[in-house]
This record gives sequence, structure tokens and C-alpha cells, in this order.
Amino acid sequence: MKKSISLLAVIFIANILYGQTTEDSVLLRRMANEILSNGNAYENLRFLTKKVGPRLSGSPQAGSAVLATARMMREAGADTVILQECMVPHWVRGAKESAKLIFANGKEYALKVAALGNSVGTPTAGLKANVIEVRNFAELEKLGTAGNIKGNIVFYNHPMDPTFIKTFMAYGDAVPYRGRGPSMAAKYGAVGVIVRSMASNKDDHPHTGATVYNDSMPKIPAIAISTNDAEYLSNALRMRMVSQVYFKTSCKMLPDEKSYNVIGVLRGSELPDEVLTVGGHLDSWDLAEGAHDDGAGCMQSIEVIRAFKALGIRPKRTIQSVMFMNEENGGRGGEKYAEMAKKDGRKFVFAIESDAGGFVPRSIGLSLNAAQKAKLWSFERLFKPYAIEFSEGGGGADIGPLRSVGTVMSSLNPDSQRYFEVHHAETDVLESVSPRELHLGAFGMAAILYIVSENGL
Amino acid sequence: MKKSISLLAVIFIANILYGQTTEDSVLLRRMANEILSNGNAYENLRFLTKKVGPRLSGSPQAGSAVLATARMMREAGADTVILQECMVPHWVRGAKESAKLIFANGKEYALKVAALGNSVGTPTAGLKANVIEVRNFAELEKLGTAGNIKGNIVFYNHPMDPTFIKTFMAYGDAVPYRGRGPSMAAKYGAVGVIVRSMASNKDDHPHTGATVYNDSMPKIPAIAISTNDAEYLSNALRMRMVSQVYFKTSCKMLPDEKSYNVIGVLRGSELPDEVLTVGGHLDSWDLAEGAHDDGAGCMQSIEVIRAFKALGIRPKRTIQSVMFMNEENGGRGGEKYAEMAKKDGRKFVFAIESDAGGFVPRSIGLSLNAAQKAKLWSFERLFKPYAIEFSEGGGGADIGPLRSVGTVMSSLNPDSQRYFEVHHAETDVLESVSPRELHLGAFGMAAILYIVSENGL
Repeated sequence: MKKSISLLAVIFIANILYGQTTEDSVLLRRMANEILSNGNAYENLRFLTKKVGPRLSGSPQAGSAVLATARMMREAGADTVILQECMVPHWVRGAKESAKLIFANGKEYALKVAALGNSVGTPTAGLKANVIEVRNFAELEKLGTAGNIKGNIVFYNHPMDPTFIKTFMAYGDAVPYRGRGPSMAAKYGAVGVIVRSMASNKDDHPHTGATVYNDSMPKIPAIAISTNDAEYLSNALRMRMVSQVYFKTSCKMLPDEKSYNVIGVLRGSELPDEVLTVGGHLDSWDLAEGAHDDGAGCMQSIEVIRAFKALGIRPKRTIQSVMFMNEENGGRGGEKYAEMAKKDGRKFVFAIESDAGGFVPRSIGLSLNAAQKAKLWSFERLFKPYAIEFSEGGGGADIGPLRSVGTVMSSLNPDSQRYFEVHHAETDVLESVSPRELHLGAFGMAAILYIVSENGL
Repeated sequence: MKKSISLLAVIFIANILYGQTTEDSVLLRRMANEILSNGNAYENLRFLTKKVGPRLSGSPQAGSAVLATARMMREAGADTVILQECMVPHWVRGAKESAKLIFANGKEYALKVAALGNSVGTPTAGLKANVIEVRNFAELEKLGTAGNIKGNIVFYNHPMDPTFIKTFMAYGDAVPYRGRGPSMAAKYGAVGVIVRSMASNKDDHPHTGATVYNDSMPKIPAIAISTNDAEYLSNALRMRMVSQVYFKTSCKMLPDEKSYNVIGVLRGSELPDEVLTVGGHLDSWDLAEGAHDDGAGCMQSIEVIRAFKALGIRPKRTIQSVMFMNEENGGRGGEKYAEMAKKDGRKFVFAIESDAGGFVPRSIGLSLNAAQKAKLWSFERLFKPYAIEFSEGGGGADIGPLRSVGTVMSSLNPDSQRYFEVHHAETDVLESVSPRELHLGAFGMAAILYIVSENGL
């Protein structure tokens, strides 16, 4: 008899669970249909890329982006829209940059260049010196220790490794040369740095991105060149046709500027003091429209609000959709948001970031403990019809500081094959975004937020 | 004792199998590294798209494409390259097409149009008639039965359904209006047909594609208009601002032309009389470069040969890499190849086709019986590091005729989200292809061919 009751209990519970996930499955289908049929993320992205344009922290366009996304949030149906003040670095590229190889026979070859973000400029007359190519820091150290770096320009020619299937792994391997490279070279007396662009393809576009000076070293000017130019320079050096490079930049860091995170709020119906955060970063590099990086993540995060409202779904927990300011060259917006979360009486339980491009979503990355995993991964199968998996590990530069308040980290992981063709380059434009891919990503975020909002962690 | 022996036997076999799949896993890694590092498919595609260009069956460019890919096959290292003769239809678009809406107030609005492939042209003076919009065949039938179609132009305005996650499902739902639509309309006395482009996005590019006349009906001229123009026309009709459309085309079908399939052969070392086929189609529509459709599949199929040769792998079974001619408006190349296979003493055991774009591969589709599945799917895990799954069902228009000789059908299934943005439109250009995505797809095909070649089915 006891056994029968247990069995009945199991069947009963199974029915509840099954019934619930059937409802969830129907809800997710409605959400996908709504976003794929009526999604507004791509049209919003058109405005952000074509009307606002490049929007580096501290620029007038970053200010326009704040106003534009606050409007989009209201139009999407956010209950409230908050502008959260934060001070941001204000780096400017200045006048047109130039660079050229100087051949042994006196002829010249113009390089297409972009100063690295946060870099100091060259002297007004520019910088001319011999170029020393290194493939990695080990080579730098060897040459530096032998006194062969002093007074020269270091050329870091470290390609993104094409054999990594996930391109972010190759980026992680190459990006230290952009980040720490200039100060590492300065340590050995280099006067300037040229970095091969962190690009997965061969083309003529330099990719910028932040360099981070070590304050104990002299700050030397640093530029990126395209992958094609890097190959050209490397060959010319190998054949001893070239020894000197000239380049001129007038970039500089100005005093900090006041700026804002833009936060759209959808108040929870049952547990409003538990907050789920979804976001991307609003600033972009100055070379392009910042369509994938990270207009996409921002527009997807606004679309989450729109979809909930359009379907008349009031989430149990509060959803905050956040346009983080200053991810690219400071991370101040993310820090400011976490500061608020620390002081706030509410609990920031879950945060998902979309900052890997607006490409077709492959997985929702989740950093969970065992109990959370046992619960949440049972919902993975609801995502299968949309070709979205769950994967281990989530997070992002802007939501990262929330770790200090115990927030569960998540990320939208789009397919990574195309990202580093356009990342931080002038090719990161609206035309490189597919509306369906962008909207499927927005769906993925809306769906996981719905599941977490209704079920907790 | 018997038990122990069985156990030992199991361990022994497990070791062999495990050892084998470890070797396979290493081989696949080498293959991926080779293709991702030194792959030539994208550069070959550059030649095919930019130097050869659009290459509809029977055109001079189709002839150039035959010569160019025969050269590429030889350069890739094929043991022999065969040109297999086949007669193909020769449809030509003729002089520039035009179309316009004629407003009630006499004003006009130019539509951007493309005649459907295989369509007859209009009378020399063009065609002017009232337009009747229908969403589907049920509406056509109702209006036709009531006598409201006779003498008019039928406008099929059937959008691709955005809620299908796999866009090929939406294409399958919409494409009958292009294929059978003109003859269905002619049945009720229509004098012409306008089809909303089978496109997943809204833009200004008409997408062409084959129409297939029913010989028992009058052949009436048919054109495609862009999705934006379809919306415009539909609104104008709804608001009764427009009743008439004029269009003029001079397309026509010429006598059949001689053409060729191009077949590159890699002779098997142990079972040369068992043939594995890999291919795409060499012809493309005349509006664009045919980069995704299907330059990609052709260049990937050549890359398979190159990768085997570059790695010094002589497959146990023979691999034939086939550039099928005339997939778009006749399928003659596929039929010719299967005819040969029927007469040939050899066994055509397996065929994989890539004709769904050069996008990131998501799965290898396989049509297998239970025994074959039990064997082949055990290798699926070797593909996981490359984010490629196995999926049920494979095939394709060009390899389809091989079913008659019992060939196992397979297909490379790339991500489908972007395909119908460019399919059959002038936007199907090299720039819409990502080199890494293209090469990962080539790897997927090379890898499954290696597995089948070494292990059989």
C-alpha cells in the first residue's frame, strides 16, 4: 500500500512537473514566435548604428546613445527607466593617424593604422625608428635582455591561432600583445609598438582595442595594423627590404566625463526584490558602428523587455535590462552597477550578458553550483527546438563585478566564427548582422530569464 | 571460465575500438588543423565568384566554371579529373526587365524585378493588367472558381514564415508559389504572375529561382519582386491606390547546350570499387556570384581532396568530388551522374552534398538503416569538438538520383538563419561568406568521408 502511494505520489508530482514544463514549453514557443515575428531589436540597432554611430565613452555620441536607448526602453514598455550616473575615461583618437614603411631604397609603403585605445600619441613630428619583429613575449625578453629592443619599435606579430574552434580562445591567446605588449616593450626601452590586429581573417582593416599601461613603465605610443599589412611588414623585414617605420598619432586621454548606465526595469509581481539582470554595453570603439560589439547585446536586452510586455507576461522576479557604459576602455559602468547592487537592499540573483556578437545563439553559459545545476539544467530540453544548448560557465566583463554580491553568472554564447572578422574594426556595421540571428539571441535571453524568474535558482 | 574469456574478449575488443577511435580523433584533429590553417576553399571561391561570376547552365560562364574547377581539382591533387558530358537547358534572361505599379491617379512606381527562371517572356510591348493578390492556393482557387482571376495578373504574397526555426521549413512552405504558382494561376486564366521573393528578411532585392510549368496549361510570364516591394504593393492594393501593374521581360528558353559535371577522383587504396561521392552544384543563378549557392559546396568538395592529399591520406575507398551541373533549373547533372553509377561496375556506397550555403556547419545529416546507424553514430562524439552533430536524414537534389542504386544519402547542414537573405539574389556574393565557416564545413565533409572510407557502412 505504501508502495502504491509512493507510486501515486511520483505520478502526481510527475504530472505537475510535466504539466509545468509543458506550459513552459508553450510559453517559450509564444516568446520565440513573438520575437521572430515582431522583434524590434534589428530596427533599434539600425537607429543606434546609423543615427548614433560610433560611441566611445565620453564622446557626444555616447551621450546620444544614452538618450536613444532610454527612449527605446520606454517604448519597449519598461515600468521605469533609470539613468545611473558614472564617471568614465575620455580617450580621443585625435587627428588622422598615419604610418609608413621606409624601404632601404628610400621608397615608402603606407600602412593603414589605428592607434590602440588608451594609447598616448607620438611626438608631434611622429616617431621613426627601426622595427624589431617578435612573435611572442619570450622572443621579446630574449632580445630585450640582449639590449636589442632599446630605442626601437617593437612589432608584435602574433596571429590568432586558426586551429582553435572557439575563436575566443584564439583571441585570449593573442590579446595580451595588445593589452600588456606596449608596457612590456617599454620595459626594454622600446619607443613605440605596432601590434598585428586580433583578427581571424586576412584583410586590410586594422582592429583597435584597449591597451593597459603598467604605470611603472614609460607610456609609449601603440598602433594596430591590419593582418595583411602585418604579413607584408613581416615579409619585408625578413627580406631586409625594410628596417624603419614611421608613424604619427595624436590620441590622448582627457579628464573623466560624466556618463550613464541606462537601466530599464520590469517590476516583479511576486518577488520584486529579487533582481535578474540582462545587459550589454552601450559604448563602442570609435572606428565603426559597433553593431556586433555591442549594439547587438544592448538591443537584445531591450527586446527582452518588449517581448515580456507584448505577451503580457509580468515576471515573478524583477528584470533589469542594463546598457552598461564604458566596457571597452574602463569598465566603469559595470563597477558602478555592482556598487549599487551592494548598497541596495534587494538581492541580485542572476545576470546574463550578451557581448560576443549578434550571431546565431549556440548556448546559454551558466556558472552554477551543483544544486542550482540540478534544478536549472532540467529545463535545457525546452531550448532544444531553438538549437540552443546550456553550457558550463557564464559571465562577462560588465556583470562580472556582481560576483561580489553572489549573483549567478550567465552569458549568451553566439556562434564565434565570424566575430573576429569585424571586432573593433570599421567592418562592425549593421550590414554584418542578420536580423534572425539577432532575434534568436534575444529569444534565448528572454527564455532563460523567464525560466529563472518563474522558478528561482 | 567462459565468463572470464568473454570479459577478456570484451576488453580486448574495447581496446581495439578505443585505440581506433583515439587514432580517428587524432586524425580528425589533424584534418581540422590543416583545413583551418591552410584551407584553399575561400581563395578558390574568390576566383569562382569574382573571375567567373554568375554561371547559369548553358552560359559561357558555366563553361568557364567547368574549366576553372577542373584546374582546381588538379591543383588539389586529384588522381584524375573527369569531365562528364551532359546536355543542359539554356534559359536566358534577355534584355533588362522592368515593372511598375500604375496608380489610380496615373502616377507610377517602379518595382525592382527578376523574371523567374525558366519563365517565358512577356509580349514585346509588355504586359499590363489588373492585379489580384492571394496569400495561398486556397484563395486562388476560390477567386478562380468565381471567375475573378481570368485576364488578370496574380500576385502571390506568401511570406516565409518567420516562426520556423529552420528556415528551410519556411522555404518549403513558400516555394510552391514560385514553382507551381504560374501554372496554377494559368489554370484560372491569369495572364501573368508576380511572386513575393522567398526571402527571410525585408529588403529591396528580388530573388529568382526556377518555376516549373505544367505542360497542360498555358505558359504565362512570371516575375519575383522584393519583400519590400511586396509589402508596398500589398498595401497599395489594400488601400485601392493601385489596380494595375505593367511588366516586361524578354527571357526565353533556348535549345539545350552541351555541358559537363566535373569529377575529381581520389582512388581508394583497398576498396577502389566502392565510391564515396561528395559534391555541390557548379551552376548558379544569373543575378549574383553564387557564393553560397553553391560555390561554397563546390569549393568545399575540392577542399576535401586537397586536405586528404596534403595530409598524405590515401582513403581505403575511392572518393569522387563532383561539381554537378544544372541543379538550379533542370537537375541534369545529378541525373547524368546517377546514370553512370547505374552502368558502372562499381558500388556507390555513400554520397554527401553541400548545397545549403557556406555557413557554420551544425550537423551532418544521415539517412541510415538501423544497422548502419548503430555503427556510424558511434563516431558522432569525434565531431563534438568541432560543434558538429549527426542528425537524422540526409540527401540533396544532385545526389538524390543515386538513391536508385542504393547509395546512402548524407548532407552537410550549415546554420540556416542567413541563407534566405541571399539565396538566388544579387546579395549572394563572396563578401557574405566567412572563410572560417566555409572551411569548417569542408572539414565536416572531409571528416565524415574519412570515417566512412576507413570503416565502411
